[in-house]
Amino acid sequence: MTKRNRLSAQEYIDGVLSGDRVILSRTITLIESELSEDIALADQVLEGTLPHAGNAIRIGITGVPGVGKSTFIEALGKLITHSSKKLAVLTIDPTSQRSGGSILGDKTRMETLARDPLAYIRPSATGSTLGGVANKTREAMLLCEAAGYEVIFVETVGVGQSEVTVKGMVDFFLLLVLAGAGDELQGIKKGIMEMANAIAITKTDGENVKAAYEAKAQYQSALHLFPPSESGWIPPVMTCSAYDGTGIEDIWSLIMKFKNQMTENGSFTRRREEQNIHWMHDSVLDILKSRFYKNETVNTSLSDLEKQVSEGMLSPVSAARKLYGLYRE
Amino acid sequence: MTKRNRLSAQEYIDGVLSGDRVILSRTITLIESELSEDIALADQVLEGTLPHAGNAIRIGITGVPGVGKSTFIEALGKLITHSSKKLAVLTIDPTSQRSGGSILGDKTRMETLARDPLAYIRPSATGSTLGGVANKTREAMLLCEAAGYEVIFVETVGVGQSEVTVKGMVDFFLLLVLAGAGDELQGIKKGIMEMANAIAITKTDGENVKAAYEAKAQYQSALHLFPPSESGWIPPVMTCSAYDGTGIEDIWSLIMKFKNQMTENGSFTRRREEQNIHWMHDSVLDILKSRFYKNETVNTSLSDLEKQVSEGMLSPVSAARKLYGLYRE
Repeated sequence: MTKRNRLSAQEYIDGVLSGDRVILSRTITLIESELSEDIALADQVLEGTLPHAGNAIRIGITGVPGVGKSTFIEALGKLITHSSKKLAVLTIDPTSQRSGGSILGDKTRMETLARDPLAYIRPSATGSTLGGVANKTREAMLLCEAAGYEVIFVETVGVGQSEVTVKGMVDFFLLLVLAGAGDELQGIKKGIMEMANAIAITKTDGENVKAAYEAKAQYQSALHLFPPSESGWIPPVMTCSAYDGTGIEDIWSLIMKFKNQMTENGSFTRRREEQNIHWMHDSVLDILKSRFYKNETVNTSLSDLEKQVSEGMLSPVSAARKLYGLYRE
Repeated sequence: MTKRNRLSAQEYIDGVLSGDRVILSRTITLIESELSEDIALADQVLEGTLPHAGNAIRIGITGVPGVGKSTFIEALGKLITHSSKKLAVLTIDPTSQRSGGSILGDKTRMETLARDPLAYIRPSATGSTLGGVANKTREAMLLCEAAGYEVIFVETVGVGQSEVTVKGMVDFFLLLVLAGAGDELQGIKKGIMEMANAIAITKTDGENVKAAYEAKAQYQSALHLFPPSESGWIPPVMTCSAYDGTGIEDIWSLIMKFKNQMTENGSFTRRREEQNIHWMHDSVLDILKSRFYKNETVNTSLSDLEKQVSEGMLSPVSAARKLYGLYRE
């Protein structure tokens, strides 16, 4: 961001709090920036907006490519904006740097929502680590909340570790699956099923209906093998079709039921508190890493030490200690 | 470890290099220790033994409980020790701290190997993080190599992230699966299949034979969907039975074929070099974290800041920055 384009912290804060979409987008770009001037400014803006965040329901949505995530998000999203609620859709995709240019992709994927004045779609932050991408998404989520968005979708591209990260920042985690597509290729492992607050079988329409109901029974019995969660919530298996619109309302009602039940028994607040503590420790790690690898002495010695390690002249652990020693000087 | 029990660095080194099993065990206990005196001594011992490590073939073995991992390891292990090769079996189990006392468990699980003078079985290191456990296992592996063990098994308990960690420290990664047991409950996701250098279907005996051959065909076609690896290796699907001994020799021949082929085309060395560089960066992170959280000021302020964060008085990111500021003072 060039200096000319930068607003004052207060201008960013006021813009976000007034729900100005252009300023919201620019603020998210600001927090994603790695320039040191931007980081200081972003901190001020975050501190100023944070007290106004936290009022949305945060919903994580995962499932492999082909499961119909975009059409599902469009269908559920329309339902939400039709009831006059503001919806923000964020994406976590640690691979977005490699594929590049996902902005256009995300908008064309969700054509109706992209034109909906009550919906705000923001593509994945790019970054070299999942942790970095996740932190930026978390901050973008808070900015959206401060801007008055009442429902946040955090969509994850199913590539293993990112589901764990998303689970750590949302209130409700929804796993989308296809009936009869073979679980091993859908990336559905025990751990991911265990994280889900509900499973929804997509494309339950036409010829798929029978297979979908069979899959529903199978997932239900698989879920019964897991120990009950502390919160007392039993994850149901739902069926839906974004094509003919069935089941979408039921899923939304379910999410509302979850929210009410968890709010009543205190799990909702407790979970957010735990998430914040985790977030603090994640941030500590980010700071430690970034300061270390930005250090000049570390940088000038790194390639030489890497060479010695790969040639077997120095053990990886000793090289790490040497590098740390240089850093502390 | 009390002072009285501690040997000198040279005594540890000599003991390990002479293949003394008692001293090997004591050295591994030493490197697992978190006492600062032990850490300095462990460093010296590692530096002294490292030049003698690296000559084993490192084999990662994964699969869910019930797949028959212990009996498979016994069967393949006996084959190896019968050809007069020394075998070390290490386990990575990030949950071993919680369940506790896995030493007896591991030895009774593998009764024959436990009595075999050519086999050395070491249970999982305990630790609060997978990264910490993995680093200790990596160092234990090098010590075993320096002690003359020619084949190392690193067994992982299938709980998600640990497979990635094991893949990062071995030459060959073997995935054990059961025929017809349902993939979603076996934790077999695309990512884990993609990491495997071979898949072996266990318990291919008696009534299971037909299902095993069907599963073999299915896994083979699933594997064909993955892009070929850089090394040119195409992961085969094998069948075996530890009960009647079929297929075990074929798996061992396959591993040898893999080793020869990868050594010839340079992938073997290249992969180990990359693993060492990764290891160095992992160690850096370990050091940064451990110094930070052992810092006195950080420790005294931590619970207060955590409280402020969970009460929403302070943002997690600001709290992290505050904590880092205190650390830098």
